Amino acid sequence: MKRLRVRAESNTYDVLVGRGAWRALRTLKRSSYTTVFVLTEKGLWAAWGKKFERAVQWKDCRTVIVPNGETSKSLKFVERVAGELLAHGADRRSLLIAFGGGVIGDLGGFVASTYMRGIDYVQVPTTVVAQVDSAIGGKTGVNVGLAKNLVGTIAPPRLVIADPTVLATLDKRTFRSGLYEVVKHGILSGHRLFRQLETSLDTLLPSNARNLGPLLAQAAKVKVDVVSRDEGEAGLRRVLNLGHTFGHAFEEVTRYRRFLHGEAVAWGMIAATALARRAGLIKSTEASRITALVRRVGEIPPINDLGAERVMDLLPHDKKTVGGRIHWVLPERIGKVRIVAGIPAAMAESALREVQQTRWS
Amino acid sequence: MKRLRVRAESNTYDVLVGRGAWRALRTLKRSSYTTVFVLTEKGLWAAWGKKFERAVQWKDCRTVIVPNGETSKSLKFVERVAGELLAHGADRRSLLIAFGGGVIGDLGGFVASTYMRGIDYVQVPTTVVAQVDSAIGGKTGVNVGLAKNLVGTIAPPRLVIADPTVLATLDKRTFRSGLYEVVKHGILSGHRLFRQLETSLDTLLPSNARNLGPLLAQAAKVKVDVVSRDEGEAGLRRVLNLGHTFGHAFEEVTRYRRFLHGEAVAWGMIAATALARRAGLIKSTEASRITALVRRVGEIPPINDLGAERVMDLLPHDKKTVGGRIHWVLPERIGKVRIVAGIPAAMAESALREVQQTRWS
Repeated sequence: MKRLRVRAESNTYDVLVGRGAWRALRTLKRSSYTTVFVLTEKGLWAAWGKKFERAVQWKDCRTVIVPNGETSKSLKFVERVAGELLAHGADRRSLLIAFGGGVIGDLGGFVASTYMRGIDYVQVPTTVVAQVDSAIGGKTGVNVGLAKNLVGTIAPPRLVIADPTVLATLDKRTFRSGLYEVVKHGILSGHRLFRQLETSLDTLLPSNARNLGPLLAQAAKVKVDVVSRDEGEAGLRRVLNLGHTFGHAFEEVTRYRRFLHGEAVAWGMIAATALARRAGLIKSTEASRITALVRRVGEIPPINDLGAERVMDLLPHDKKTVGGRIHWVLPERIGKVRIVAGIPAAMAESALREVQQTRWS
Repeated sequence: MKRLRVRAESNTYDVLVGRGAWRALRTLKRSSYTTVFVLTEKGLWAAWGKKFERAVQWKDCRTVIVPNGETSKSLKFVERVAGELLAHGADRRSLLIAFGGGVIGDLGGFVASTYMRGIDYVQVPTTVVAQVDSAIGGKTGVNVGLAKNLVGTIAPPRLVIADPTVLATLDKRTFRSGLYEVVKHGILSGHRLFRQLETSLDTLLPSNARNLGPLLAQAAKVKVDVVSRDEGEAGLRRVLNLGHTFGHAFEEVTRYRRFLHGEAVAWGMIAATALARRAGLIKSTEASRITALVRRVGEIPPINDLGAERVMDLLPHDKKTVGGRIHWVLPERIGKVRIVAGIPAAMAESALREVQQTRWS
């Protein structure tokens, strides 16, 4: 088990990744909280709740159940969860444990950071992407209509405890979708993690916590390092948006029905890499290695039928842009990305069309 | 015009109180914002919008209108307002101006502090209570069902500009309701403001901005001083809850239909003063002066028909309590209150019954 430390502006907290990480919840004193709530999903809790409670040894946690899926990430459910917390006596010294994937983490973090103007919370991420990315850094948010995370906060958790054992019950597609984010962190962090992924990608299976643990810890460290230096999104943290500018547009143009988030980001990384090559920012050999590793993770639903003009139209809606201008995150080489503004729209569209027209084997 | 400065943990900002305060918006550079939105109510904006725009001299502000009244202070309206902001191109560098009373200020502050995880906002309070209290300090919040401010944030505005001229169109009852909060600040701050209120209370009328300005500035300073020392609610800031423990219960037991907030706080202050006397914390002479000044503001809907047991039952639901225990804010003398825990419930109930049974002339 690996212990990482986030040193953010607003707080310092530990991120534990590896088998047995759940036990670390005991480092928080139960007695310093009046009541403890676990926000989770039914099926997930049925599969893992008992094991979690055994590891944690707190016997009086009350669960708050929300439906599986993105619809729970809404202000309607903020209202519902806050109401349920109040009904069961949650006060300012209650603790909320967000036990689930990205939806639970984002919703739980938002509720915790706003319930009575803020209570403590702990992230217990149960998907790959949550373990290496979304549960770390304190970003919370809910969707408004189709606008993802339109309403949110930046509020650090007290603790993040990521045990890869829980990944065993993930379906394969969701698991792979998370691996794309691991690859993204490989691109950001450099040759060591990237090569390890090239070597061991095929052995990374949901049930293989032993192999997964050390790799996920490395990938999580990328996020920990970034958010320790930039909790907001003014500067460095934007590198984490690699693949997200196109990725969001792919999700939006398909009304969030075709791709899992990581899959859209995968296409986004491939398109950003193509754009970086067109802009003369990256060598072909490096670009090919990036594209090849992304592709090796597995099949992704196609993008070749999507209207390129429509995708381009959706780009400036990305909330990472300021005043409508796009700040692209483009790879320069494995281990280095650059934020570039002022890329001509025509060049971005050409890169997109190239990726769409490529016959991926 | 009086310039006060809030030096809070998270930020430093100015509070301007007095005739002409709106002009100070110009000290913020219009060019540092992509777009500017004014959250307000229809009737209020019809009466004052033009004057505001003339004072501010920014010609391209877009209004976002919400219905008058407490129902707008909900997650439903957070969703609606955020959606409208997005539809009209608000991004991370947009500015939101909350132009209205407590509801607009609390809703606007909450939306601003969570829209794309936080944009700048300015408070333009247009009621007495907003000008001396709620617009200052960065507390935002919306209701969940009957639970007031159950979901909220602490997010300082960039600026608070309070011009008493706008009070001219307030109905008298709302105006008086705000004066109770001014009296509260008089009790907290000491003899200077308290005596001024005793002397000039009868000349304080909605249309008398000249008289109101200096007094409101003094009352606002009480809030500024408190939140400069305690932005959260762990310690000092709790003194502002004088009258609120009983006050909230009075509002709740009447399902928020009988009292304006300030009126409930007025009864709450009278009851808290009665309790302080029973607890031997305050001399009768001082207690009588407090009670007399509160009563002099004007008629308040009665509390004598409310079930005392029911009111008592509602007390521990107050979110200012931790673990269910009540921290009372009780006056010791004019200029000093004390936070007291461990008051026997029977003593509080006796104080309540005493106030209920008094024949207020």
